[in-house]
Order: sequence, then structure tokens, then C-alpha cells
Amino acid sequence: MKVVCLSGGVGGAKLARGLYDALGSDLTVVGNVGDDLELLGLHVSPDLDSVLYALAGLNDEGRGWGRAGESWRTLESAREWGGDAWFQLGDLDLGLHLVRAAALRRGDALSSVTAALVGAAGVEAVLLPATDDALRTRVVTPAGTFSFQDWFVGRRHEDEVDGVVFDGADRATPAPGVVEAIREADGLVFAPSNPYVSLGPILAVTAIREAVAERGVRCVAVSPLIGGRAVKGPLDRMLTRMAGGTTPAHVAGCYPELVDALVIDRADAPAEAPIPLVATATLMEDRASSRRLAETVLEVAA
Amino acid sequence: MKVVCLSGGVGGAKLARGLYDALGSDLTVVGNVGDDLELLGLHVSPDLDSVLYALAGLNDEGRGWGRAGESWRTLESAREWGGDAWFQLGDLDLGLHLVRAAALRRGDALSSVTAALVGAAGVEAVLLPATDDALRTRVVTPAGTFSFQDWFVGRRHEDEVDGVVFDGADRATPAPGVVEAIREADGLVFAPSNPYVSLGPILAVTAIREAVAERGVRCVAVSPLIGGRAVKGPLDRMLTRMAGGTTPAHVAGCYPELVDALVIDRADAPAEAPIPLVATATLMEDRASSRRLAETVLEVAA
Repeated sequence: MKVVCLSGGVGGAKLARGLYDALGSDLTVVGNVGDDLELLGLHVSPDLDSVLYALAGLNDEGRGWGRAGESWRTLESAREWGGDAWFQLGDLDLGLHLVRAAALRRGDALSSVTAALVGAAGVEAVLLPATDDALRTRVVTPAGTFSFQDWFVGRRHEDEVDGVVFDGADRATPAPGVVEAIREADGLVFAPSNPYVSLGPILAVTAIREAVAERGVRCVAVSPLIGGRAVKGPLDRMLTRMAGGTTPAHVAGCYPELVDALVIDRADAPAEAPIPLVATATLMEDRASSRRLAETVLEVAA
Repeated sequence: MKVVCLSGGVGGAKLARGLYDALGSDLTVVGNVGDDLELLGLHVSPDLDSVLYALAGLNDEGRGWGRAGESWRTLESAREWGGDAWFQLGDLDLGLHLVRAAALRRGDALSSVTAALVGAAGVEAVLLPATDDALRTRVVTPAGTFSFQDWFVGRRHEDEVDGVVFDGADRATPAPGVVEAIREADGLVFAPSNPYVSLGPILAVTAIREAVAERGVRCVAVSPLIGGRAVKGPLDRMLTRMAGGTTPAHVAGCYPELVDALVIDRADAPAEAPIPLVATATLMEDRASSRRLAETVLEVAA
């Protein structure tokens, strides 16, 4: 069963790992690049890297982001030399960023660099950035409009969010292979990522949204909420303010016409929604629970 | 006593440290940039950094290059991701390279980046690159002509050297402050660095060579040989092949008209040379011996 999963960072990466364990090379993950940033002259793709590290088994399961066994000496040295070091980049992580930044500077597209990294890690699934173009998420708050990372890391996502805009989305085209993978898939999955700032930037690429809308197969979303609360991050506050609540119906309402079923946690059932709901245990604490959730999702998508 | 020291990497950095301990902010070091290279998208200035680390007390005295307490995780990670990792860059070292590369990419000159790094380290001496322009050493050997680092590191400086050329020297102008510092100095010092590939690139900048040639003060060179052998590196083989021998006269012959006295090791005395020779202990094993040698050099220069 060929499956395409649209994914943000941490939660998406965990489901991607489960799907990879179930599907192997039949999995294609389309990753968010709206959070990408430039730091110390390096292009950093936090969501792509979270997925890559999870697929490669290099991720830190406890912390939820970055690599296991990470250390921070290079960044600490850069800070001591006066460098801009507000974003956490570990030594092992920086090795990847150096290789990617050098390739991008040589003129390689983000998608081909990503493919090379996936190959170097020995991962057999396909990982594609939504787009090779510059598409950047900006968050509109009462305190002003900020780049995603300025708001999320710099301001600790404390500002309430009134809206999200995607700079460059009108000009962005899908990375090579994204639309083809969606058209050829036997099922589509929306990972349990933030609908606004993780999957929103992917679906803001018109041709990707259209390919999903025109699907001939089922598309299953996994709710990122458990008991109406975000497992991690500010989604519950964002949904309450922008959608009016945090029920499964509010989550489903983020994906109008795009999703055929929503997998929710048992803590949120029973509930009413305009699409079928499937309740299961959605908390992914390790690879085994990721795989169990992935297999449920695949059954719903089949 | 205001002193300008022309310096390469390891041996020069040791003498620079001794001069700094003796002179404090009256020391200006003019560093070689002919060895500079681009690795993983980062501009690396090995000789400037050896001097900076020595002045800041951050250098690894045992290894002779790089920082004390260094580790290698970022480079090892870059290698695993397929990166070009043939040149040893430690985690602490990379922090500096990231900051410098980002500043150079913003358009800062190497000299202003270097000044910022010196300031960040709390060093009160002045450290100037010979030039902000691209001046690169190439080594002519029977096996072909190589960039300095390709020959020195990549080929382990095993090829005999027939000559050295300095790409860009004809267009290179001195970095701001270099000629002024030489003109205002009370004494000039040539560090015990390789005359061909360490001090040669500095003196290949016409205005620097002219400023030294037109000096009204004494210029003292320190021989990098002990008992006719290089303390480190291929200089003895280079001198034998290109100058015909490794006596003090052969070393002095590398700096015609530029040097008023040569400080040599006691192992090389007595000897004959066209300029006065001063014999002392020149091996610098620690900061104390660096300072002792520096004070002898300053007495000769005064």
C-alpha cells in the first residue's frame, strides 16, 4: 500500500516512524518547510530534520526533537565568539546543517539535498519538502506579525495567534515528486501536526492542496489533541481562539473537503463531527506505540 | 615599545604569545592568509586562528594547533552525512568558523571580522590579516601544482617543493592598518615560521614588503630551524631543495634586505651569515619559554 503522509515536526515525525515500520519504501513523507530558518549562515529545516532523524532512528525520543546523544559545544563556542545562537543546534545536528547549507550554496535544490541525506542515512522511505521555493510561515498576533521561529522560539509562543500567513505561497510550486506521489498513493495521511503552522504551509501550495482535493483514495487525519489539549505546543490555544474550540469537529474543520476520516484519542470520544471519527490510543511514547497508531490509520485509509 | 610581528601558524603563534606577554597592547601581529580555505561552506583561516587561540590562551599546547579541550562531533556528523571533511575542524573551532563565515557573507572584511573575534576573546593586542583580498598559496611540486592545503594536509606535504606562487598577490592590497602599524613600529619581528609558505604570502603583498624594506627601525627574524631541522613541518626539505642548505645563512637568504639580525638556536651556532646572528634557546615548549625567546628578540630589535 503506497501512502503519502503530510507531516510537521515532532508528532508528525513519530507517526512517520510508525508508518515507515509498517510500509518501508512504500511510504512518502511530505514535510513542512514553513518553519525553515537561517542561523549562522546555515539553512535549517527543523521539521524535515525531525522526520529524517525519526526515520533513521537517530531522534531523541525523550526530548522530542533533535538527535539522541546530542551535545552543544559548537553552538556554545559560536555564542562566545559573538554569534547569533538563539536557536538550539546540537553538534551532531550541525553536521547535517553544514552539509545541507554547502549543497544549497552550490545550487542544489532542497529536495535533492534531502534525498541525499535520506540516502546517507540508509532510509528507504521517500522524504520530500513540500516545495523547493521559499515559503515561510508568519504568525499574526496582537503584539505584531512574527516569523514562525521568532514567535515559537524567540517569544516562546506566548502571544495569542489571530492568523497565519504563508509568505511566498502564491509563487511556490510543489517539489519534484510531491504531486505525483499524492496521485499514485493508495491512501493519504495527515499526521498529528498543528493544522495551522505545520500542515497549513504544505496545503498552502495550491497544487498540493488541489492534488489532495482531487484524490481518488481516502485521506485520514490524526488529531494532534488528546482530551482537547495539545500533546505539545500551543495548538489548543490557537484552536480555541481561531476556531472556537478543541473538539474533534474543530480539528476536522481545519481540513474542509480534504479529509475522509479523523482518528482521535479515546479521551475525546464520543464526539460529533461532519466526517467519521475513529477512536484509539494516539499518544506515541515509543516506536511500538507509533507503529500501533500507524496500523490503525492504515486500516482506516484502506 | 610598539612591535609588529609577521607570523604564520604554529611556531609564529607561540612567539606571538610570548611577545603579547611582554608587550600587551603594543603588539600587532600580521597573519598569513595564504593557507585559508573553504570547507563545508566555511571560510577557514588556520594561521590567523592559531595566533588568535594562542593570544587568547585557548590553544592546545600539546598538539600545537587548534583549541585545548577540543572534540570532533560536528565534523564526524558532517562526514556521515556525506560532507567534505578532510580538514580537521573541532567543535569549538567550528563555532568560530560559523561566526566568521556568517559575517563574511554579510559583507564584512576579514580584518573587521578578525578584530571582532579578538575583541570577543578579550585580547588587547592587534591581529591583522595581511590582506582582505583573496591571496592563496600554491605549491609547485614534481607531481603538479597544488593549493597549500591540498599539498600540506591532503598530500601530507610528501611531495618535494620546487617553488611557491601566490595567486592574487599582484592585486592584493594590505588590510587596513598593516602598513601604518609597520611604519609606526619601534621594531619589527619575523616569527619562526616557514619563510616560503608562511611569511612568503605576507611579503608577497607589495606594499607590505615595501613598508618593511623602507623601515627606519630594526627587523629581527627568528629562525624556525633547530640544528638545521624544522621543529615541525617540511621546511628543512624545502630549504635544502630550493636554497641549497639549512644553515642560518640559508634562512637569512630568504629575507634579503628585509632583516637586520637573525636569532638562531644554540644548536646552529657558531655560524656565518651576511647579517648578525644571535644564538639563544629557541624551542618554545610553554608560555614561559615563549616569553623568554620574545624578550631576547625584543632586546635584539631595540
